[in-house]
Formats: sequence, structure tokens, C-alpha cells
Amino acid sequence: MFTRRKFFSGAVALIGGCALFKRIAQGAEVVAAQSPSPASSNGAYPPVITPNGLSLPWKMVDGVKEFHLTAEPVKREFAPGMIVNCWGYNGQTPGPTLEAVEGDRVRILVTNHLPEPTSVHWHGFILPNGMDGVGGLTQKHIPPGETYAYEFTLKQHGVQMYHPHSDEMVQMAMGMQGFFVIHPKDGYKPTVDRHFCIFLQEWFVEPGTSTPNPNIMTDFNLFTFNSRVWPGTDPLVVKLNQRVRISLANLSMDSHPIHFHGHRFWVVGTDGGELPDGARWPEVTVNVPPGTTRTVEFVADNPGDWAFHCHKNHHAMNVMNHEIANLIGVNQEGVSDKLRSLVPGYMAMGSDGMHEMSEMNMGGPKNTLPMMTGTGQFGPISMGGMFTVLKVRDRITSFEDPGWYQHPEGSVASKV
Amino acid sequence: MFTRRKFFSGAVALIGGCALFKRIAQGAEVVAAQSPSPASSNGAYPPVITPNGLSLPWKMVDGVKEFHLTAEPVKREFAPGMIVNCWGYNGQTPGPTLEAVEGDRVRILVTNHLPEPTSVHWHGFILPNGMDGVGGLTQKHIPPGETYAYEFTLKQHGVQMYHPHSDEMVQMAMGMQGFFVIHPKDGYKPTVDRHFCIFLQEWFVEPGTSTPNPNIMTDFNLFTFNSRVWPGTDPLVVKLNQRVRISLANLSMDSHPIHFHGHRFWVVGTDGGELPDGARWPEVTVNVPPGTTRTVEFVADNPGDWAFHCHKNHHAMNVMNHEIANLIGVNQEGVSDKLRSLVPGYMAMGSDGMHEMSEMNMGGPKNTLPMMTGTGQFGPISMGGMFTVLKVRDRITSFEDPGWYQHPEGSVASKV
Amino acid sequence: MFTRRKFFSGAVALIGGCALFKRIAQGAEVVAAQSPSPASSNGAYPPVITPNGLSLPWKMVDGVKEFHLTAEPVKREFAPGMIVNCWGYNGQTPGPTLEAVEGDRVRILVTNHLPEPTSVHWHGFILPNGMDGVGGLTQKHIPPGETYAYEFTLKQHGVQMYHPHSDEMVQMAMGMQGFFVIHPKDGYKPTVDRHFCIFLQEWFVEPGTSTPNPNIMTDFNLFTFNSRVWPGTDPLVVKLNQRVRISLANLSMDSHPIHFHGHRFWVVGTDGGELPDGARWPEVTVNVPPGTTRTVEFVADNPGDWAFHCHKNHHAMNVMNHEIANLIGVNQEGVSDKLRSLVPGYMAMGSDGMHEMSEMNMGGPKNTLPMMTGTGQFGPISMGGMFTVLKVRDRITSFEDPGWYQHPEGSVASKV
Repeated sequence: MFTRRKFFSGAVALIGGCALFKRIAQGAEVVAAQSPSPASSNGAYPPVITPNGLSLPWKMVDGVKEFHLTAEPVKREFAPGMIVNCWGYNGQTPGPTLEAVEGDRVRILVTNHLPEPTSVHWHGFILPNGMDGVGGLTQKHIPPGETYAYEFTLKQHGVQMYHPHSDEMVQMAMGMQGFFVIHPKDGYKPTVDRHFCIFLQEWFVEPGTSTPNPNIMTDFNLFTFNSRVWPGTDPLVVKLNQRVRISLANLSMDSHPIHFHGHRFWVVGTDGGELPDGARWPEVTVNVPPGTTRTVEFVADNPGDWAFHCHKNHHAMNVMNHEIANLIGVNQEGVSDKLRSLVPGYMAMGSDGMHEMSEMNMGGPKNTLPMMTGTGQFGPISMGGMFTVLKVRDRITSFEDPGWYQHPEGSVASKV
Repeated sequence: MFTRRKFFSGAVALIGGCALFKRIAQGAEVVAAQSPSPASSNGAYPPVITPNGLSLPWKMVDGVKEFHLTAEPVKREFAPGMIVNCWGYNGQTPGPTLEAVEGDRVRILVTNHLPEPTSVHWHGFILPNGMDGVGGLTQKHIPPGETYAYEFTLKQHGVQMYHPHSDEMVQMAMGMQGFFVIHPKDGYKPTVDRHFCIFLQEWFVEPGTSTPNPNIMTDFNLFTFNSRVWPGTDPLVVKLNQRVRISLANLSMDSHPIHFHGHRFWVVGTDGGELPDGARWPEVTVNVPPGTTRTVEFVADNPGDWAFHCHKNHHAMNVMNHEIANLIGVNQEGVSDKLRSLVPGYMAMGSDGMHEMSEMNMGGPKNTLPMMTGTGQFGPISMGGMFTVLKVRDRITSFEDPGWYQHPEGSVASKV
Repeated sequence: MFTRRKFFSGAVALIGGCALFKRIAQGAEVVAAQSPSPASSNGAYPPVITPNGLSLPWKMVDGVKEFHLTAEPVKREFAPGMIVNCWGYNGQTPGPTLEAVEGDRVRILVTNHLPEPTSVHWHGFILPNGMDGVGGLTQKHIPPGETYAYEFTLKQHGVQMYHPHSDEMVQMAMGMQGFFVIHPKDGYKPTVDRHFCIFLQEWFVEPGTSTPNPNIMTDFNLFTFNSRVWPGTDPLVVKLNQRVRISLANLSMDSHPIHFHGHRFWVVGTDGGELPDGARWPEVTVNVPPGTTRTVEFVADNPGDWAFHCHKNHHAMNVMNHEIANLIGVNQEGVSDKLRSLVPGYMAMGSDGMHEMSEMNMGGPKNTLPMMTGTGQFGPISMGGMFTVLKVRDRITSFEDPGWYQHPEGSVASKV
């Protein structure tokens, strides 16, 4: 649609899948080490893992946990080969995960380094009206260059969100959002061993360009877990028989039914709090509507590599042209070559389906990912977007990525 | 797309936000006054409030509560500055709210003043098959000019709907729908103090025109609470510590996740009836799928002005062009002026986001609302569509609109 | 978009609404007769009915229930007058329903007669990782011409799905999916008398052509129950006071809120298993997100012909052009005729709504169904797509179609 020119003049951090970042990403240890709270150092709380992201350290100031968020432009690598001009917090999209404990007094300083006003709304929090962060309604918008303080006491626990309530259609579509996990005062019963937080978002980035178009309402072409797409998404690695929580948050325009394989789980919480035991639903796919969080819990008792993805099929694909014709059954001999001489990078749908595309490596527009990609130990996986792998292992060689599952002999579907 | 000419020749009522109407809108008192039912006059039932709407009076005829609905064209002011050619009932869209009590015998006379046949289906009712209102299947369609009688006994309680089952894609997209609240025979336990009913709908009205296009399936541009858009939506005003129910009904093509701030609530009912206590979910956003009602309950124990809106961001905006280019980071010096000389009313997206649009007041096409609008005590709120304000007050100066919340000193996020 | 030429050269089965097929469709008896399992022959299990489809017979091989699925192109009659080039299993789309009992050892042989690789994923099953059917991740893709064996023990009960996990966006959009019902070891309590299984899917078939376009992401034009559209959908026939389960599965891109009239029901299961009693929700519309199943239960205690449909209005219509202009209120005298001379088959929206279209029978593009169709005992029903009739009868004359309900005198809404 447009060539993007000199997008942001300021220096912006390039955060993605680099080694240092990955180490931090796994590392709620960083937070725990810095935490003076007995609650988080006595083992009552599971380390929260934000795949391809991290938790934000705080400092204690006169008995108040003080966090500092800077709203700013961010260059985000969605997957190797594609960098997107986003907006976020502290160099990241989604912003870093905030963690605190029910009963804590928290102060969050918000500095605005965006080119326009912003505000931060604490989604689902029970707090004084003037701390609610709705620009115009409960506070003045925060002008560029200024810092505002939010301060309140956490009267609840659960998995909440933060996001702007100021030019919000634009700011959320550009990537401004994050988790705020409030741990229960008395810990989790039963104890949770591992807790993953994954933010769902949709984007439209015109192929060949780098900046999302926030005006798009229905026809998105990139679907992300923590602003990353497969194969750039961290795997979810857990030890066999660990009790695992996965929290999903959604500030996109569509519901995302998140499915994973090999296990049944229970929906245990929303952004309204914990579900009473008897109200919980067993699911293998949890539908996450916009403007909500959903937390599911399960015991990872089935070893292997398990697909974890949005079950809307187009959402587990990368950038594609949804208006291309279906050529199944059509003899295309010579047609693609002719078209490609007119439209550089043109790639027709195959006459026998699209499987063959996963094995090609054709040149597409610059800064644009292939539609179907990723390879497993048995060949092309041919996915994209909201897709990753839940790796359940008897012994963990690495929490970053233990490699492919070693199947016992005879445990794989095979030719007869 | 088309210039509309001499749309409806008959006289139609203009109902919107005028003072008289507002008084009635708050006024379940009107109904209570006219109600001979001990059930509704002994305080067992909360007054049902249909914001920007009203409940329909009935008369007792030989022990039967008799209502009269007239299906007809309606001119509806969505917000000051925009009037839409709708179809509805009794001069309104949504039609008036019907209220009765479990066990009542009701008769509803339906007169068709539309230019085509219609019928009324009583959504979610347990009734005799021949009263179900499905044109062709359970009755003849009601021709223009004729009146049909539906009569049945209410065997249930809950928040139900009524709508046509005749050319229904067109008739519902034109605004034909309403609430039917059936109060429980033995009252609400605990007692409910205030009960709001809000109908959700989506429309496509080509900018510059006045009639919705019911053929649109996905790309809507107006999103309404009771056929009104912000800032034309009535606030929801409640006294501190009142127990409040809010019922939401949806006959649009999309789910609407309705969110409000400052409180957690419980989902207590669907159009299938009351949820058992133990099955209720705590939420801060209730997702309302098409063809359902959802009733939530909470105690309004947090004073202030709380945003109340659909959490799909584009649904809390007014008419916009979802296909405009994203100009974030693009130097547009002089470009808008040039374009405006070619396209009257053209307004580009800002190079620094869209916040600045909320402070402009540019001329757009006639009968078209600005995309982002509304002003609070702290400046522009910059929303539209499915947005209003839940006002929780210690003392109520006015149930219509008590003005902005007076924050105690120091309770507002501020510059540091 | 394209003329389809010599689509599939191989012989494909034409399966639709023929008499033989209908008889089989009702016939879980076929399975029961062939079943050596005491569990299914002792009456503990209700016959599963797949409307417009059937269950797959199996054979016992050394104590293992062996099924054979062949993935292949299928010509499917969506309704009389429209045949679509799909992909499916064993000549059908959806594939045949598989039925077994918790604790059974099952083996499923999958032969690939598609022009590209495939695999079968057992959605929601607790099974060994290597049997999970994710091409590239847990097994090699199955090449054309080859047969693979899946074998595992059923550790759960519930209503599950099977579908490809190989070029899945294309293969599911072409119709590859089916039910796998795992009956509980100890039977249903209370006993279920009748259990219907209905698969929900969306398609885009360019009017005048015959092959779905799987690249479409949002703008579908055909919405099916078991790959059939009204009036080609089998009615759901039950005896008065039978306890009925209806299972719905969805592998499309949208949630489908399925509604039926005259009864309230309880959501009793998902693809994650049975809901605990106390967690069940009463509904009259069950929203089925993509990648899930929902099972509802009710006692059919209200005799009559009850509409059963998706409550997204456009989904209960057939092929239409969603971009046609709204001509309500516009004098079109002579316009349609002029347009029709330019665009053969052109049919404008009526100036008084669309009701009149249901009574016309104009020539449209070949192999394209009318938008609104079907006739009941009281005139045109004017629906399409995801619509059928739940027929509850005191005495059953035929489980295929007992004809229209005979209303007791005075039980039908009528002119006053």
C-alpha cells in the first residue's frame, strides 16, 4: 500500500530471539533474585514464564513495589527474516510481565516516549477510580515526554492485563499490552510447578512493508503468540508430571480457540478471578474472547512433542493472500512462470493442494515470511502464526529447547 | 453507494435522545404505575431500565396481560448528528421491553406496518409449537396491514428476546428486536436493586447515507447499545452498594465481549435460564455470542465513572474507513490538503497515531458521525460505538446523569 | 473466478440425499449388527445418528477394533441442484462417524487417495505421542497411494474429532473431518435415547463454479450441517419425551451459535470430556467455537416442528452476494430488467425487503442454490445453509421424515 520511509527517528531496541534475551525469557529467577517479598522467595509461587518475553524487576520503595514502564516504539522480530515496527513497553511487545502478590501496594511509573499521548488501564483490577487509566474519563492523557504515577493496593489475585486507554484502537494494534500476574496471598493449592503467559494478537502488515495497519478490522494476516510467529515462537518445556498453568490474554479483534494435544485441561481462571472448583470446564481447546484472559491447568503426564496452536486454521499460517484463486484440479503448466515474469515473487496455489509450498523456498516480498514453514524430525510441519510445541519430557536436557522427542520403538504411526 | 430517495412515505416517529424520551427511558415507573400485578407493585421486582428505550405498558383483559406491538419503519437517532432509517416496533429500535411474571398468561397482538410480511418469534420460550412465530413453519407470515395474536402461558423465568422469523436477515439487520423479561414468581434472591437491558447490534451505513445495508456480512461500521452509539448512549447510573443486574442480548453477526471497569461480576443467566449457583463464572468481560442473552450480577461497591464497552476495539469506534492506509511514521506535509481538494472531507490518519483526530472537528460526509469522540472531565475520551459510562455514586443527584465523579484529592494518576 | 476443468480424473462416489443413503444414514443399526462388543449390543448405548451421513463399520482383528479410512476426493451434493468438489473420507464429507467404547483397543488404517500427502490427527485423544498424527512433528506425512496404521487404547470417553494435520488449512476447508464418539464404559446415566452428530463447516464456492476456495479467511458463502445446506439437511426426528443428545463439532473459521426452539437444554460435554453436573449451563443457543465439540442434552417434551439453525443470520442463508446494495425504499421500476440484460441472472434486492425473493424462482448461475428457500406447511420458510427442523412427535410415522406437525385446533398464531 505504501512504502514506509524513515519510520522512527529515535533509537529503538531490537528484541527478539537472541541468546541473551532467551536466557532472560526463561528467567523468572531474575525476578525472584531481586524480590524482597517472602511470598515469592519461599517457593509458594511458580516462576512465571513469558515465552519470548520476560518479567519486569521492581524495587521496594518505602514498602511499595515500584515498577517502571516506558511506552515507546519497538522493533520486534516476529520470526527470523521479519522485523516489524511496533509500539510497546520497555523495548518489548508485549510489554514485560508484572508480578506481585495479593495485598501488595504497587506503584507503576509510566513514561511516555511515544509520539502521541497515552495512558495505562489496569484491566480487571479493583482499584480507585482515579487510577483506572482511562484518558479523558479518569485522568488526563499522558503527553509525550512525561511520566505519570499509578499507585494502588492489590485487593485480589488472578491473571490481569495492562494496556492503553488512549487512542486505543491504534495503540493496541501496534502491540501495547502486557500481563500483570497477581499471585494469591496463600499460594496455589495444589502447588503449580510452571506457569506460562501468552498474549494473543493479530496484525496486518502489507507484504513487503514493516508497519502494522491498525485500521484493519477483519482481514489480518499475522497472528502472534507474544508478538512472535512460528517458527519464531519459544517451545513450552515442562517436566513429566509437573502441574502446569497456561494463561492466555487476548486484545485482538477475534476470539482465538487455543488447542493443545495429548492432554485434557481445566479452565481455572478468567480476568474476573479463579473459577470455583465445581464451575470448571474440561477442555482441549480454550476459546479466548477479546478483552479476556483464560487460565488453564493440567498435569503434564503424557511425554512427547505436542502441537500447541490456535484452531482457526488461517491463524496458524503466516502472511498470505487470502484472495488468491483456488487452483486445485487446474492444470497450471507454464502459468506460474508467466505470472512470475509479471509479478515478482508470485506463487500460485498448487493444483494438488498446498503441501508442496512447504518444501519450496521461493523469493517473496522483502521482510515477509513464508506462509507455511517449520520443520520437525519427520519433515515439514508447514505451519505459521499462532503455533508452537509443548515439550513434555521425562528428563529435561534444556528448558530452552530439549530437541525432538525420542519415540520408543513402534510408537509412531507407520506404513503398512 | 446509492443516494436514498423518498425512503418512507408514511409518517414515522423520530425517537432518540430528546428530553421527554429520556424521562420515559428511565421509567419503569411508568409500567409499575400501570401494572395491576401484585408481583410488580409489591417491590419484589426491580424496575427494568432499558437505556435509551423503555418498557411497554400492558392492559389486563380477562386475566390475560395484553401487549400490542406494531412492526414499522422507524427513524432512529444513533447520536446527535446522525439519523438512520430503521425498522422496529412501536416507533423504536430495539422494540420496547416487555415485562411479565412467570405463570402469567400473556397475549401479544402484532400489527404489521412494514412493506413486507413479518412474524414474531419468542426466542427461548417454552410455548406451544403454533405460537413459535416461524413464518412458513409454524404459522403463515403476517401480511402488511394485518394483526396476528400470540397467546401463551409463561412457564419459565429469565431474560428472553423477541424478533422476526420472516426475511430475518433483513429484518434483524434493520433493527427489529427487543427484550422480554420474565420475572421469577417468587422474586429475586437476593433482591436486585437495578436491572439494565442492553441490546447489541451491528450495522453498515455507507457514510453520507441513512439506510443500513443488511447484505453486509462481516464489514460493519456502526456498533450499537440499544441502537445508539457513544456519545449518544445513556449512562448507567447506580447508587453505591446497590445489587445490579445487566442483561445483554445479541442478534448481530459477531460475538461482543462486553467489559466494564472497577468491578468483578458473575454470569448468572442465559436465555436458557438462571445458572445454578455453583456453575457461575466470575468475569470482568462477558462474551455475548449471537442469538443469546447473558445476565451478569454484581454489587456496585466502587464509586466512580467506569468505562463500559465492547472490548473489540473497532466496535468502540464510530463509522470509519477500515481500509485507509496507516501513515504512522510517514511525513505527510501538504498531502492531506492536496487530497482534501480532491476528496471533500478527506482526513488522513495522523503520522503520530490517531489521538489528534479526537481534537479536530473536520467536516465529514453528511449524516456521518466522527470516528472518535466524546469528552470527559479530563479531556477527549475519543471513543464511539458500543461505549458508555457506569456511574456509581454515594449520593445520586440525578439518575439520568449525575455529572462527572468528584475524585477525592490525590486519587488520580498524575505527573511525577 | 475460474472455470474448473476436468477436476478429478478418478471415479468418485456421489453421495447425497438418495434413498439408499438416507436409509443408511439413520442406521446405527448397521453398526450395532456388526458389533461384537457386548457394550454396544446390550442396549447401553444410544444409536448415534449422523444426519445425511453414517457410522463406519469395523471388524475385530485379534481383539482390536479395526477401522479403515480412505482420504479421497468426494463429490458432495450440498442440496438438490448443487454438487461440490470436496475432499473427504470413504466417499463422504464429513467422513463417517467412528464409534467405540472407552477401554477399546482401536486400529485405524488410513489410505491416502488424495493428490498430496495427508495425516490424521485424533483431536482431543489421550494417546501416545507418535499416534497423534501431526505431519512432520510426530510422523511422516502419508504420501499419496500409501496406507498408515494408527493404533491406541481409548483412555477416555466423549465426543472427539478426526481431521488432517497436514496442509490442514486446505484439507479441512475441502471437507476432511469426522466424528469419533467414545461411549462411556458404564453407559450413559440417565440413559440417552437418541444422539445426533452434526459437523459445522463454512465454504466459499464462487457462484457458477464447483470447487471450494480454501484461501478465503472471512467471507464464506456456504454454511453446512454435515456438508449439506437447507433444504438438503435431514430433519432431526425424535419421539416425545425421549432424552436426546446433540453433538456439534466445528472446524471452520468462525464460532457457530446453534439454536433450537421449544426446549431448553444443558451443555453436558466438550471435546475435553463430560462436564461435572454442577458446572453445566442451561442454554437455548450453544456457541461452538472452532476446534471444539459441544454436546447438549434435553428431554424432548414439547411436540412440534422446531427450527434448528445457526443464529448468525447470514449462516442460515445460501450463496449470496454480500456486497449487493440495499435498495429498501428505492423505486427500482425497470432497473432490474435493464441490469438483467447486462448481467444474466441478476436479481436485485427488493425495495420492500427480501421476502419476495423467497417466492421467485429466477435463473441464477449454474450449480448455485437460491439464497432463501424451503417451504413449510404455512408457506415459504425462506432460509438456507445451517438450518433444519427438529421434529418432536407423539407417534413416529417415519424416522426419516414424519411430515409436518398437526397442530391441535387453535394452537397457531392467527389473524385477529
